[in-house]
Amino acid sequence: MTTYETLIKRLKELHVLGSIGGILSWDQETMMPLRGGEMRAEQVAMISSMSHERFVSSEVGDLLEKLKEAEGRGELDEEQAVNVRETRRSYERDKKLPTDLVEELARTRSIAQQKWIEARKESNFKMFQPLLEKTISLKKQVAELYGYEDDIYDALLDTYEPGMTVAQLDPMFAELRGRTVKLVEAIAGTRKTFGVAGLKRSYPLTRQASFEREIAEAFGFDFKAGRLDLSAHPFCGGNAPHDVRMTTRRDEHDPLSSLFSVMHETGHGLYGQGLEAKHSGTPMGSSISLGIHESQSRTWENLVGRGRPFWTYALPRFKAHFAGISDDLNSEEVYFAANEVKPSLIRVEADEVTYNLHIILRFEIERDFMNGRVEVRDLPEIWNTRMQEYLGLTPPNDALGVLQDVHWSMGGIGYFPTYTLGNLYGAQFFEAARKALPELDSQIERGEFLPLREWLRENIHCHGKRFRATDLIQRVTGKPPTSEAFLTYMETKFGELYGLG
Amino acid sequence: MTTYETLIKRLKELHVLGSIGGILSWDQETMMPLRGGEMRAEQVAMISSMSHERFVSSEVGDLLEKLKEAEGRGELDEEQAVNVRETRRSYERDKKLPTDLVEELARTRSIAQQKWIEARKESNFKMFQPLLEKTISLKKQVAELYGYEDDIYDALLDTYEPGMTVAQLDPMFAELRGRTVKLVEAIAGTRKTFGVAGLKRSYPLTRQASFEREIAEAFGFDFKAGRLDLSAHPFCGGNAPHDVRMTTRRDEHDPLSSLFSVMHETGHGLYGQGLEAKHSGTPMGSSISLGIHESQSRTWENLVGRGRPFWTYALPRFKAHFAGISDDLNSEEVYFAANEVKPSLIRVEADEVTYNLHIILRFEIERDFMNGRVEVRDLPEIWNTRMQEYLGLTPPNDALGVLQDVHWSMGGIGYFPTYTLGNLYGAQFFEAARKALPELDSQIERGEFLPLREWLRENIHCHGKRFRATDLIQRVTGKPPTSEAFLTYMETKFGELYGLG
Repeated sequence: MTTYETLIKRLKELHVLGSIGGILSWDQETMMPLRGGEMRAEQVAMISSMSHERFVSSEVGDLLEKLKEAEGRGELDEEQAVNVRETRRSYERDKKLPTDLVEELARTRSIAQQKWIEARKESNFKMFQPLLEKTISLKKQVAELYGYEDDIYDALLDTYEPGMTVAQLDPMFAELRGRTVKLVEAIAGTRKTFGVAGLKRSYPLTRQASFEREIAEAFGFDFKAGRLDLSAHPFCGGNAPHDVRMTTRRDEHDPLSSLFSVMHETGHGLYGQGLEAKHSGTPMGSSISLGIHESQSRTWENLVGRGRPFWTYALPRFKAHFAGISDDLNSEEVYFAANEVKPSLIRVEADEVTYNLHIILRFEIERDFMNGRVEVRDLPEIWNTRMQEYLGLTPPNDALGVLQDVHWSMGGIGYFPTYTLGNLYGAQFFEAARKALPELDSQIERGEFLPLREWLRENIHCHGKRFRATDLIQRVTGKPPTSEAFLTYMETKFGELYGLG
Repeated sequence: MTTYETLIKRLKELHVLGSIGGILSWDQETMMPLRGGEMRAEQVAMISSMSHERFVSSEVGDLLEKLKEAEGRGELDEEQAVNVRETRRSYERDKKLPTDLVEELARTRSIAQQKWIEARKESNFKMFQPLLEKTISLKKQVAELYGYEDDIYDALLDTYEPGMTVAQLDPMFAELRGRTVKLVEAIAGTRKTFGVAGLKRSYPLTRQASFEREIAEAFGFDFKAGRLDLSAHPFCGGNAPHDVRMTTRRDEHDPLSSLFSVMHETGHGLYGQGLEAKHSGTPMGSSISLGIHESQSRTWENLVGRGRPFWTYALPRFKAHFAGISDDLNSEEVYFAANEVKPSLIRVEADEVTYNLHIILRFEIERDFMNGRVEVRDLPEIWNTRMQEYLGLTPPNDALGVLQDVHWSMGGIGYFPTYTLGNLYGAQFFEAARKALPELDSQIERGEFLPLREWLRENIHCHGKRFRATDLIQRVTGKPPTSEAFLTYMETKFGELYGLG
């Protein structure tokens, strides 16, 4: 066996181990009875510490060292070079963290998450503040160990979006923020509402489930290689590419809420199912970044699912599933209901326009506290002031403000920007897809989604980590990532919807 | 940390690892999408080989060696002594098998199972014959390595029922066979049938599910520490004691089939939930043997669930769940339907009386081929002849005969007797429970099952592996295991039902 083959063998073994974690986590959120939690915590901890130990073992280090020569002599083909490059990247990052810091992070995360739940329940930021301070201090240590050139925040952002920097984000987000705030004001000025209330009827949950399944299948999700279940918060997990598990949550009086969750998770799921099985367990068979992953979910949820062509196709199917309940609806009404713009306090309930303002606010705050420009104790005030500035709303309490998201309690600092990057990347890819598939709208109207899925598969999914996000976008769209495609899409769509000049 | 504490720490770590296998297997049978199978096989193989390697490691051996002195000096209390004794037993057995034999067994099992599925589908024993020959030959090697005194079969039986021997089984089974065959003949002579057909209506599956759940809860199963799902073959798995997962399969036209499966699995589940959490992962927190486990499932399925007092309680509940479907039924009709004796070809469909004949037939055949007294190629003929002798039926083909069970393809030779031991043990325990709980029948009629569950918990479940099966039975019932209690129960119940002298 060559050195390269040995490395791949080790990676595939590590992948089998890691993939067990994927099933255990899914089970925990969907199936596990209450009292199973204690054993589950031990199982998950064991899998993750074994994975970490094995990956940063001297054997992997030696294999990578030996492969330097082969690389130098140009003996690796393109795919092999990708696998070695990306494995080295992960190995070197993981090696930088001493075991006691990794354990301290895990311990802090576990305590911080419990404290955050309590603090949110009592809407009391002070309860969470010491844990957030501890988390930030540990994350600063992590960032210093990882290293960075310009901004300490880059070191954390790089965890979720390899290669992305504050310097790249700043101009994109500044443009996005300015034009979004302007659009939100213009929309508010119209005083137009879309009567979403007209949809508020009783939609049996089992019928919602079968409608959602039909849509996910129409998009191209393979239920022989995946599932759809219920959980408190929708997610997509399991073992890609052949056991991809999506979840949703259903509200009897709002069939669109779960539907959009399912279309979102189906986007993630199609990415997972589109990874090449022969590369499983290696970087060539893994997703690029959270931003690229989110671009896929946003494509199916928003660019397709919140579009007029989709509802031309979907409303008759919707009516078939909800016969006797929704017979009087027309597709314009549902299209409007799915696109009402209304500033709100909670990120996960935000519409397509205001959503990014929630993210930019979080990104700005994270960057400031990582750079020591603000004190943690001032975060509620900073949050509320900025909410008023961007969205014209002031949270009445911390639970509806600074305490609403789980991310900081989990140490996920640097994660939020990938949500907005997903929106931007998605729009930029979709613009390219439209050029490549001139019949796209009429295909969608007819319920023919496979041309789009194939285009995404060929241009994005099948490449695994062959390219960094920025390079992939350049390659597929002919341009570096910018906010332009998204802004054009947003201003056109909502300008028309709200009759703006 | 003392040597003993270190051993317990290792055992608990091994238990966490092994318990992951419990969730993966459950998921495979209940949730996993079709295409997830390939990865799942690798996950399960990885967990089981890691468990084996870690358990037979020199560290465990050294700890056990060191503990010999502590044992000699009487420094271990009773529970500690049990944990050391049983760990040593498992360790010494596992150590006897060389790694290449373990791997060969696993490979053969995997191929044999596939071949068995094909062979059964085509009802062609010849297709399976070479794999069964291979399996038997490997199992002979295993038995020789384990060692035995009288009969090679003892070495395999001991895997599932520690301490049990052919010499103990023979008299029990001979008595059982003789009197059962006689009872079956007497019943056939009455030409009485119970009109089970009267129950054959359409019972919606969701209502079956909620009725079953109510019964399992009434028996004392804690759904905060367990689940009930669907699978092709009912089983009870997961992670005892706090995450016990039962399954069933439902037939719209036969509500009793799934109900009895659920009562059976609830018996297993209550044993699991009754193990002491503080002893989890150690022998003191593990079940004694398959026979004892089966005694618990048979108690709830047959001794309780197929009894008259149960149906006095259950029929009104049944009618409440199946309102409009079963309003005309009376509890005697259902009690009869649940107890019709009718020789059949398939073990898993057999009634309480004929069931043990199916087991005895398999036991006799296994013992014969393990002792080289019969050739594998002759098994179909031997099977069919003996079916005619015991049950008066001849299978029309191998699928309905010698190929019906999965056990041999999995290498589970020595497993079958534990099913009948479960029936015998169960009846013997129940006789003791009746003495201890003189109001038992009227409690059951009122739906008060907790006194029985508590009695089983205190007398059986909570002891883990403190006693061997035979010692536990002696202790709880004052007698060694015999077939007498079961025969008395069976002859009385069915004598009355069929109006025999």
